[in-house]
Parts: sequence; C-alpha cells; structure tokens
Amino acid sequence: MGQTESGHEIHWDSGPRGALTKGPAPMEAVLQAAAVCGGMDVVSILKKRRKEISRFELETEANRKADYPKTFEKLKIIYRLGGDGITLGEIEKAVKLSWEKYCSVVNMMIPNVEVEYRVELLEEKSV
Amino acid sequence: MGQTESGHEIHWDSGPRGALTKGPAPMEAVLQAAAVCGGMDVVSILKKRRKEISRFELETEANRKADYPKTFEKLKIIYRLGGDGITLGEIEKAVKLSWEKYCSVVNMMIPNVEVEYRVELLEEKSV
Repeated sequence: MGQTESGHEIHWDSGPRGALTKGPAPMEAVLQAAAVCGGMDVVSILKKRRKEISRFELETEANRKADYPKTFEKLKIIYRLGGDGITLGEIEKAVKLSWEKYCSVVNMMIPNVEVEYRVELLEEKSV
Repeated sequence: MGQTESGHEIHWDSGPRGALTKGPAPMEAVLQAAAVCGGMDVVSILKKRRKEISRFELETEANRKADYPKTFEKLKIIYRLGGDGITLGEIEKAVKLSWEKYCSVVNMMIPNVEVEYRVELLEEKSV
C-alpha cells in the first residue's frame, strides 16, 4: 500500500494479463497519469478561455517493447470532449500547449517513448 | 475516475500543496510507480534466490524543476527491507539488477530525471 504526499493510498499489485489483482500495476498507473496530467491541463486551459466542458473522456493505448525493461514503445492518448462553444480546433490547441509546455508526465518519457495524441469533439443535443 | 486494463479504478485529483484532494495527483502516482516497479522486481529476484522477505518499505524523495513542464529533477528511492538470511549486499544486487534491466518506469525517465537509490537492511529480533 502506498501513501502519497497528498494523503492518498494506492494499493499496488501486478500479475499476468487477465489475472485477478488488487490494484493497478505501476505501468498502468503511469499510462493513466500521462493521460490525466494532460487532461488536467486541457481543463485548466479551456477554463481560462471561459469554455465550459460538459463531458470529457480520455482513452489510452500503449504497447511495450519486447525486451527488458519493457518500456512503452508507443503511447497514444485520445482526448474526447465537448461543451458549449468548444471547437475541435480549440481542443487541439489546448492539447498541443499541454504537451509542449505543461505536461510533466509525458515530457519525462520523451524521447524514450513515441507519444502521439488524437483529439475528438463530442457534440450532443437533447431532442 | 480512471479504469485500468486490469479493472482497477484510480480517482485522480490535483491541487496546491496541502489542499484537500480526492485522490493522487499524476506525478505522485508516477513517483510511487517508480518505487513499486523496482520493489516488485526486488521481491521476485530475492524469491528466485529463495530468500524470504519479512518486511519491505519503500520511501521516495523527489524534487521538481522550477520551469514548466516541471518534470522531476532528482528522484531518490530508498529500499528498506529484511528477512531471514538477507544481507545488505543481496538487496543491493537485486536493486541494481532491477534498475539496470527490469524496471520499466525508472528506465522510461532516464536520462530526463536524475535517479538514485539507497538500500537499507532491516534487522529485527523478538526478545
């Protein structure tokens, strides 16, 4: 069990693919942290531009090198979001800014890992 | 809320130092993941050598660069463990092997982050 500086516990575990485990494996958490790190930047960048996000989903894809230490080879993060007046271009600008300037997790892995992102606009309407 | 491939949820959050948050921040989780990743290696290496660990603590210290993207500048992981017949030299060998060969999280951050470790042997006896 790990205790973070902010006082939260993470129950770490690891096992073969499909095995029943009690918590996330380290590399799973790093993958999510990379997505969430950039996702938090995007929220704060759009907030500063007075854009209200109504829905935000992050999806990750990664594959690992065959040889030890089996680091990620490629990592892809999909930012899927929408909200009143938000355009695909604005999402792209925010994500770019996050990756180029703010996101610590992603920037610690470059160039060891080939990272790419994809932005998607969610438009919805109640009828 | 993030769902990992292994089916676990992480409630991510972030706030200024000391703020009340609902879960770990991305960089906190990466720091722990780096320690746990190597820690799991050490457990498995010592197990293969038929050494029984009775206690294992991991401690991390890190500081971040002042400028964005504020990646970790230095990261230190302390491996503190003990068990029947385990020597400081064996812990050191296992940790070295983990860092040089197995630990994916640490190896993704090198050389962006200056990483170092310290090993400590816990000896105890009931009297």
